[in-house]
Amino acid sequence: MVLNRLEQLSKQVDASASPPHPFDPLSATEIERAADIVRAVHSDKDIYFNTITVQEPRKEEMKAWLANPTAASRPRRKAEVVVISKLTTRSFDAIVDLESSRIELWIELENQQPIITGHELKHLEIVARSDPKIIEQCGIIGIPPEDMHKVYIDGWTIGYDERFGSNVRLQQAIMYYRPHVDDCQYTYPLDFCPLYDPIKEQFVHIDIPKVRRPLSKAPPNNYHVADVEKNGGYRDTVKPIHITQPEGVSFSFEGRYINWQNWKMHVGFNYREGLVLSDLSFNDKGEVRPIMYRLSLAEMVVPYGCPEHPHQRKHAFDLGEYGGGYLTNSLTLGCDCKGAIHYMDASFVKPDGSAHTTKNAICIHEEDAGILFKHTDFRDGSVIVTRGIKLIISQIFTAGNYEYCIYFVFHMDGTIQLDVKLTGILNTYAMNPDEDTHGYGTQVYPGVNAHNHQHIFCLRIDPNLDGDKNTIVQTDAARGPAPVGSEENKWGNAFYAKKTKLRTVLEGIQDYDGTTSRTWDIVNENRLNPYSGKPVSYKLVSRESVPLMPAPGGLVWGRAGFARHTIHVTPYKDDQLYPAGRHVPQTSGKPSKGLPEWIEENPNASIENTDIVLWHTFGITHFPSPEDFPVMPAEPMSLLLRPRHFFKRNPVLDVKPSYAKTPSQVAAGVEPNCCSIGSKKDDKSVNV
Amino acid sequence: MVLNRLEQLSKQVDASASPPHPFDPLSATEIERAADIVRAVHSDKDIYFNTITVQEPRKEEMKAWLANPTAASRPRRKAEVVVISKLTTRSFDAIVDLESSRIELWIELENQQPIITGHELKHLEIVARSDPKIIEQCGIIGIPPEDMHKVYIDGWTIGYDERFGSNVRLQQAIMYYRPHVDDCQYTYPLDFCPLYDPIKEQFVHIDIPKVRRPLSKAPPNNYHVADVEKNGGYRDTVKPIHITQPEGVSFSFEGRYINWQNWKMHVGFNYREGLVLSDLSFNDKGEVRPIMYRLSLAEMVVPYGCPEHPHQRKHAFDLGEYGGGYLTNSLTLGCDCKGAIHYMDASFVKPDGSAHTTKNAICIHEEDAGILFKHTDFRDGSVIVTRGIKLIISQIFTAGNYEYCIYFVFHMDGTIQLDVKLTGILNTYAMNPDEDTHGYGTQVYPGVNAHNHQHIFCLRIDPNLDGDKNTIVQTDAARGPAPVGSEENKWGNAFYAKKTKLRTVLEGIQDYDGTTSRTWDIVNENRLNPYSGKPVSYKLVSRESVPLMPAPGGLVWGRAGFARHTIHVTPYKDDQLYPAGRHVPQTSGKPSKGLPEWIEENPNASIENTDIVLWHTFGITHFPSPEDFPVMPAEPMSLLLRPRHFFKRNPVLDVKPSYAKTPSQVAAGVEPNCCSIGSKKDDKSVNV
Repeated sequence: MVLNRLEQLSKQVDASASPPHPFDPLSATEIERAADIVRAVHSDKDIYFNTITVQEPRKEEMKAWLANPTAASRPRRKAEVVVISKLTTRSFDAIVDLESSRIELWIELENQQPIITGHELKHLEIVARSDPKIIEQCGIIGIPPEDMHKVYIDGWTIGYDERFGSNVRLQQAIMYYRPHVDDCQYTYPLDFCPLYDPIKEQFVHIDIPKVRRPLSKAPPNNYHVADVEKNGGYRDTVKPIHITQPEGVSFSFEGRYINWQNWKMHVGFNYREGLVLSDLSFNDKGEVRPIMYRLSLAEMVVPYGCPEHPHQRKHAFDLGEYGGGYLTNSLTLGCDCKGAIHYMDASFVKPDGSAHTTKNAICIHEEDAGILFKHTDFRDGSVIVTRGIKLIISQIFTAGNYEYCIYFVFHMDGTIQLDVKLTGILNTYAMNPDEDTHGYGTQVYPGVNAHNHQHIFCLRIDPNLDGDKNTIVQTDAARGPAPVGSEENKWGNAFYAKKTKLRTVLEGIQDYDGTTSRTWDIVNENRLNPYSGKPVSYKLVSRESVPLMPAPGGLVWGRAGFARHTIHVTPYKDDQLYPAGRHVPQTSGKPSKGLPEWIEENPNASIENTDIVLWHTFGITHFPSPEDFPVMPAEPMSLLLRPRHFFKRNPVLDVKPSYAKTPSQVAAGVEPNCCSIGSKKDDKSVNV
Repeated sequence: MVLNRLEQLSKQVDASASPPHPFDPLSATEIERAADIVRAVHSDKDIYFNTITVQEPRKEEMKAWLANPTAASRPRRKAEVVVISKLTTRSFDAIVDLESSRIELWIELENQQPIITGHELKHLEIVARSDPKIIEQCGIIGIPPEDMHKVYIDGWTIGYDERFGSNVRLQQAIMYYRPHVDDCQYTYPLDFCPLYDPIKEQFVHIDIPKVRRPLSKAPPNNYHVADVEKNGGYRDTVKPIHITQPEGVSFSFEGRYINWQNWKMHVGFNYREGLVLSDLSFNDKGEVRPIMYRLSLAEMVVPYGCPEHPHQRKHAFDLGEYGGGYLTNSLTLGCDCKGAIHYMDASFVKPDGSAHTTKNAICIHEEDAGILFKHTDFRDGSVIVTRGIKLIISQIFTAGNYEYCIYFVFHMDGTIQLDVKLTGILNTYAMNPDEDTHGYGTQVYPGVNAHNHQHIFCLRIDPNLDGDKNTIVQTDAARGPAPVGSEENKWGNAFYAKKTKLRTVLEGIQDYDGTTSRTWDIVNENRLNPYSGKPVSYKLVSRESVPLMPAPGGLVWGRAGFARHTIHVTPYKDDQLYPAGRHVPQTSGKPSKGLPEWIEENPNASIENTDIVLWHTFGITHFPSPEDFPVMPAEPMSLLLRPRHFFKRNPVLDVKPSYAKTPSQVAAGVEPNCCSIGSKKDDKSVNV
């Protein structure tokens, strides 16, 4: 019977359709196929689906196929499936071969909880409103039973609570209140925190603080139209800025590969990391040079700094516990991006195994990038000024109260830039009038305590710089060794780039040092720049370094081991994708999952001239202030990966200048005809 | 006779014209007037003018007038004049009262050299080409006498050379060669360095290296049209991006005051700092709140790291030795900026006392700033997304080989951002084939050694945050004091903002510390945020910290004292504008001029709750690579000054959203009519 159904599913493979690229995310059809295959074997009454995503091809196999797609065998389409049994509350990891319709792997997760899905998160609010104990607690702080529909809850993973361990799947309910349905609930945080079992669909415990904090009586603090109009209305002083591309965009697609200004890369997306860029290369005057095998934000953690119970549980791993793909926004033209926008959708599984597609999950567009290079010769007035454009591949995800805008920016000169904008709303907690926050939070509005926190990200860089034999070299500016006044350094100005090759996994654990202008070079020692004689490299320039403020030995220190240092380097291994572990919710941190595990497995493993992964921790420390409330103006962060000794010369000299005039043209009074200073009809100038 | 001429000049004051604002730069007419007044007293055959600029009003006087322009007396127009006597080679500082036509001050500069002007710099190339000793040296390295017209020289101040001291005005000639008039000379550096006396207009010495480096025979490495066409031509893949403002700009002028999105400030410009912004305020719901009295880039130094003589002399103070105003570019529409551009000109004195006006010295324009804030409520789909614009006041100056693009960026939310883009051409030196650079430089092209260097800037911030009684508070993220496991910090997550008030000038000397996410708050302790109870503040967020690589006790360490630390704080004093000293060329560094002097005068002076100046050092360390040559793709730097506890709430809620929908609108299926998602006609979207 089971076999018959599997055979039936096998036949559904449409052999005529061109097969998806192995890097492509699963289509809605593939997701539903994977679910069908699982349900053919396992009771579909009992299980609900947690995630279904593509199992990315094993690298060796994929490299062989990319190198020779006609001779090498095409990596098979496989799905990684996670299911939860409602009946037994057990969870399972599965691998499903979509071509053979076989379940290749089926293992139970012991002491692990898979990601919390939006479906689970939304449900607890409904259950809470009729939970007698929650109604009772609401009553104590001043919310009558008939107002329970005004109670709103941000469901969070419990993080880790040692009283409950990892076997029972749990969420913590961060409680709020809206006087009116359109009021911002973050102005009215409630002081207690129920715990919810999403499988049993019931609350199992309530954490009640020693000091109670009755519901705030402050007037609402809103950002919606009615509130703005009450406070004087919208300003009328903002004139529109139109951005148009009448000839269209400068990029093109082959499937999900994008070609743009010598760059080529595959644009993927999954429930976990959201955007995944693969097989990045740069066409260097006809030679297609690989840059990276894969690039993604792989994890993040947002530890809050208030030590009062139960706030230690607030340290969301927004990717590992919720999923940057699952949380992603459907983007809107003219709102999130301007210009000629290309969108890509993303499909996910719903608990029942059907697929849901988020429209416009990925935004791809170009922006003017200002001056690309310029030089004027002061003696003769000869000049060149060339403007650049940039390609931006972006997504925005909403993690409960906060918004993360993620922009992978590609520059014409080979630079990769990652910009992150933080916006959205502060996580808030109730405070009594004149309560002392003890420095662990800020009263951003009467009755609203916004706790100190950090946003710490992990960028996973799987380099492939002219091939996969790469090495990380730490570069520190160092003063010349000879003392000032000596013959070798008479005036004391000697300085050089001190290069430290990181040879082992242990040596690969390093921290930022601003006092030496520290950077890290991803190098390929097997290829030297013909002029400088130095290995081709990409330099990680990131000053957005952040210390992990939670203390060593504490809960977050254990759970977010990746965040202890600015960089880690590991030898490449398939499936080592997530630096806080594959299944993050309710990890205890003892031992630390992910990076610390992998490091401990073989701390002396070589990371020299081999296939490596560079993990970069960056972020900010946020001490809230009232201007962040009730919604926060975007705070920017930025880091660069810059080609160094990679090209023989400036690779953008062939971009048409806006204006250029050689010395002989200046002397002859000849106006150049090379140039694209063609936007004159649009640009306007006024002399003040 | 002299008196008669002064009387005559007095009568030339046109009483009917509306007087310039006291912050305004001198007009061309005023400059020529000042020169006339000086020449009426001093022989005009003998002297040539070095600089004439406005003497900014004394702050006390100016504050009184700004507070009450009808009752207080208007600060008088005065000119700061520097002249050099050709005959005696003596230099003089003068103050000229333009209203009374009197010379108020006339003092000789002892052991000091005023700024080097473009006129002086250009002249040495002409003189060099017929100097027999230079012709001889050229011959030695392979340039025949008949090719002397192919020799090009970047004149630099000598910096400081202990063999010649400060009394003789000297330049060093950085020598290059162009095979063809249109070739980039930086590909052909020459190995010797003549020294030039610009007053006597003659060369006084030649520094000749022990190891000679004959003229490179490498083919030219150019960036001009012919070269690009020879190498395959311009790419045709860049589609235009048009930026238009059909309804005009969102700013307006009152004289040189600009009004934009609640910001108001005066835009000044001088020969030295270039852009000077004064009297910056923000209209906070009707209350005009002062932010800063004055903001400018006040100094910079570019130390090079090769200890070989005479390269220690390469450490240009591009503002103090040459002038960021004197070096500024005349900007071109569609090249340097796009959109609806407003320009301002700048006038300078020529050696003969006549005025020269650089057209379009200042560019003022707006740009789209992307998402200003966004939030989506995950439970009900209610959403707000608001886009911002930004105001950019910019200039670009060319310092010999390099270009500095300076952008003062103002955001709607009260943030001030300083962006600097570095572009232009590397300073290069000759190298023999297979010569070892000893790590102090990089061969970026055959025969071309680009030395390691730093670009270190000093931002002078004269705050006026809700008045001039301000204080600097250093903020470090710090772990809670209780150990992990203790009752007060059981899970180890406690962290807070450790605030250190800087009370004295000595305490005001501080360095960046990335390990504590260190920032500095400019606070006014006399005004507390009503919600947070914390003093109103602006936070300096600058991770672009850079160590001064030249060693303590060395030449640059002495001359660039300001660059030793990330911040300095001094009590405000009129005329303490330039942190490396008023006259920078040929300072010995013993003692250090500028900041170190002022600190030593009174190291225990209070900087608490008083009128202070914050000096911020930032920059980058640049180890060249071949992609920087023959012209360098722009390298960005950025820092922020952000309002914290300054506003009661997000100050941009009244910016019309692109899209917003409240929960009740979502529930009712009502489309909002609040919103400005009006660019739909321009934006285009494609689903890939």
